Amino acid sequence: MAKPLPVSPLARPLPDLATIAGVRLSAVAAGVRYQGRTDLMLAEFVPGTVAAGVYTKNACPGAPVLWCREALTTPYARALLVNAGNANVFTGRAGIQACEDCADATAQLLDCPPQDVFLASTGVIGEKLPQDRIIAALPAAKAELEDNGWADAARAIMTTDTFPKAARRDVKINGTPVRIQGIAKGSGMVAPDMATMLAYVATDAKLPQNVLQSLLASGCAQSFNSITVDSDTSTSDMLMIFATGLADNPEVDDVNDPALAEFTLALNDLLLELALMVVRDGEGATKLVRIAVTGADSNLSAHRIALCIANSPLVKTAIAGEDANWGRVVMAVGKSGEPADRDRLSVAIGGTWIAKDGGVVENYDEAPVVAHMKGQEIEIAVDLGLGDGEARVWTCDLTHGYIDINGSYRS
Amino acid sequence: MAKPLPVSPLARPLPDLATIAGVRLSAVAAGVRYQGRTDLMLAEFVPGTVAAGVYTKNACPGAPVLWCREALTTPYARALLVNAGNANVFTGRAGIQACEDCADATAQLLDCPPQDVFLASTGVIGEKLPQDRIIAALPAAKAELEDNGWADAARAIMTTDTFPKAARRDVKINGTPVRIQGIAKGSGMVAPDMATMLAYVATDAKLPQNVLQSLLASGCAQSFNSITVDSDTSTSDMLMIFATGLADNPEVDDVNDPALAEFTLALNDLLLELALMVVRDGEGATKLVRIAVTGADSNLSAHRIALCIANSPLVKTAIAGEDANWGRVVMAVGKSGEPADRDRLSVAIGGTWIAKDGGVVENYDEAPVVAHMKGQEIEIAVDLGLGDGEARVWTCDLTHGYIDINGSYRS
Repeated sequence: MAKPLPVSPLARPLPDLATIAGVRLSAVAAGVRYQGRTDLMLAEFVPGTVAAGVYTKNACPGAPVLWCREALTTPYARALLVNAGNANVFTGRAGIQACEDCADATAQLLDCPPQDVFLASTGVIGEKLPQDRIIAALPAAKAELEDNGWADAARAIMTTDTFPKAARRDVKINGTPVRIQGIAKGSGMVAPDMATMLAYVATDAKLPQNVLQSLLASGCAQSFNSITVDSDTSTSDMLMIFATGLADNPEVDDVNDPALAEFTLALNDLLLELALMVVRDGEGATKLVRIAVTGADSNLSAHRIALCIANSPLVKTAIAGEDANWGRVVMAVGKSGEPADRDRLSVAIGGTWIAKDGGVVENYDEAPVVAHMKGQEIEIAVDLGLGDGEARVWTCDLTHGYIDINGSYRS
Repeated sequence: MAKPLPVSPLARPLPDLATIAGVRLSAVAAGVRYQGRTDLMLAEFVPGTVAAGVYTKNACPGAPVLWCREALTTPYARALLVNAGNANVFTGRAGIQACEDCADATAQLLDCPPQDVFLASTGVIGEKLPQDRIIAALPAAKAELEDNGWADAARAIMTTDTFPKAARRDVKINGTPVRIQGIAKGSGMVAPDMATMLAYVATDAKLPQNVLQSLLASGCAQSFNSITVDSDTSTSDMLMIFATGLADNPEVDDVNDPALAEFTLALNDLLLELALMVVRDGEGATKLVRIAVTGADSNLSAHRIALCIANSPLVKTAIAGEDANWGRVVMAVGKSGEPADRDRLSVAIGGTWIAKDGGVVENYDEAPVVAHMKGQEIEIAVDLGLGDGEARVWTCDLTHGYIDINGSYRS
């Protein structure tokens, strides 16, 4: 962007970050697109580190996403290389070549097979990735690797993010202390050409890939797959977790093993915290909105209805205007195509039921609703009155800031 | 609205309107919500007039939509009563009662069965319709019925519309001159199936209901169901056609009868003209955008992809910023969930192919593209390179005006 964006009013400060045994990180300025800032992060993982990942469902993914999916066919990871400023998307054969070149160069430096190197790019779509600049910056990136590189790494992967995003949890597996720490970037499907949500989590826990993968997939469903800023899906989204195994917890082979209960809760909690930071940095966002749907035909139906409400421009602009316009919520439920009975539908805002069983609640107290709409965190609840299906999703309001950011020329 | 909205820069003047034999209209101020303007239109049809209609697919339709669906079970229509300012949606039992009361009062005045009276309401959702005000205004509405009431009727049904919408065609059936004329309203909550969109067409042609219904349904698919402003689907939409039969054209029983070819083309053309007026009045719109998709797996797939592009906030804001941001078009194709092959995808803006077969066209001439983006009518073409499926949809850009209007609709 030509001039820096103002920091989101919903921003969160970086938490007290620690180190993850077996992980070293660095951030350098490779000059991929931006000047005067770091734009390349390298993470080195100790041999034996196991990886799991969830990638964008966009049918036109970037070359790095294809590379990572392939690399994940073996469980091990030795490095993660992420650049900001260029997404290496829709770059044809040249994009694939760029990935191979970057992976080969990193593998040589760290003395590992190329398929143990994971790659990500975020930024402009359709412009060839200047891999020579990235490769030229690799030696410096290796030289600067350090245990405490997390905060710098979080900053290096920002595009139009207005604040760096990280989260940490300390828990136990069978009494053995383990740590989970992660960073993320994203403001939804970010500003001019800058598309993507990236999140990387590491733990020193010892876990087999099948367990790690299913933990990540279920955690993602309740976090990164339950947020939306503008309904647009990046071509580069990815969420990955790396387990170094340096904590000497007893190996757990079953994702449902009670020994993993605390770890699973902490991981899900951390993923949601990171996901909500992305919403808090949503382009132009001034309010964080939680939409809870209950009484739906199924959980899937509830999820679809919640997303339909969360993606409705009319609902989002009403929230921006601090207008408790529940009629637009009814509209959004109705347009979702999911089972709904107008005469059983109930809507609450900020805990006050405004509409019940298909009609307005006579003489409901508007005061708390009006006060709630003026706050920074808005809660909308919808009960379908049909079944037990429920879901929660988070979004932000739609403001002039979104138009400002996305209506401006690429610069 | 608190203050009148500025007229859309894409506005079209009212055409030279004529009369339709057997149709009289009037517009009065019932004070349903707005002050100092007409907000109630009444149309009277000669006995024997046949009706056909297409209604919203929103699962939470307004009471008037339910009334009209029921009324359409008999082919005849004697009256149409439409109010602006209150949508009579999500009003429970009271909403049904309001429809019955309005229909009964109209039927008594015009001496016809209540089920020959069609009703529509557009405006705020969730507030009880003040039917007493409407019923009190009916005698004046009847007294002012006139052949030339079309323009006044078009104005009376406006809500956030910034200009009245009407269109006319004069054609022949088997050499017999017949006329088609219609009015429409709508500018937001506009998306397929259908929009906060009301459209009423009348013709003096003599046509059976089955023919009229299938003509309207197919015409609607290519017009009102191929436009979107904000992806939101209203609870009140309807498109209806009334055929008075006073033209002495020979009766045609088969919709595919060649005698109807000219009439069908003219009707489809009129419906598209009205639909595009709705897009031209899209809330905050500064550009009319046509999205043409070819080479898709099927026509349905092409339609879904085109709508996905048309509803993408990032595509719409880029257009508002006059940014030929084809990368966002690629993103929107990819997120549609429809069959697409990144390496066969091509994108053109204003007739210039910017991307072909999965990559940027090297050294394409940017000048005509930049010039095209500065215009009021934008054309985006996408070829999937997969099959013969094609579709065209129309939308508008997403601007600050949309936020202004929808952040304060009820104020």
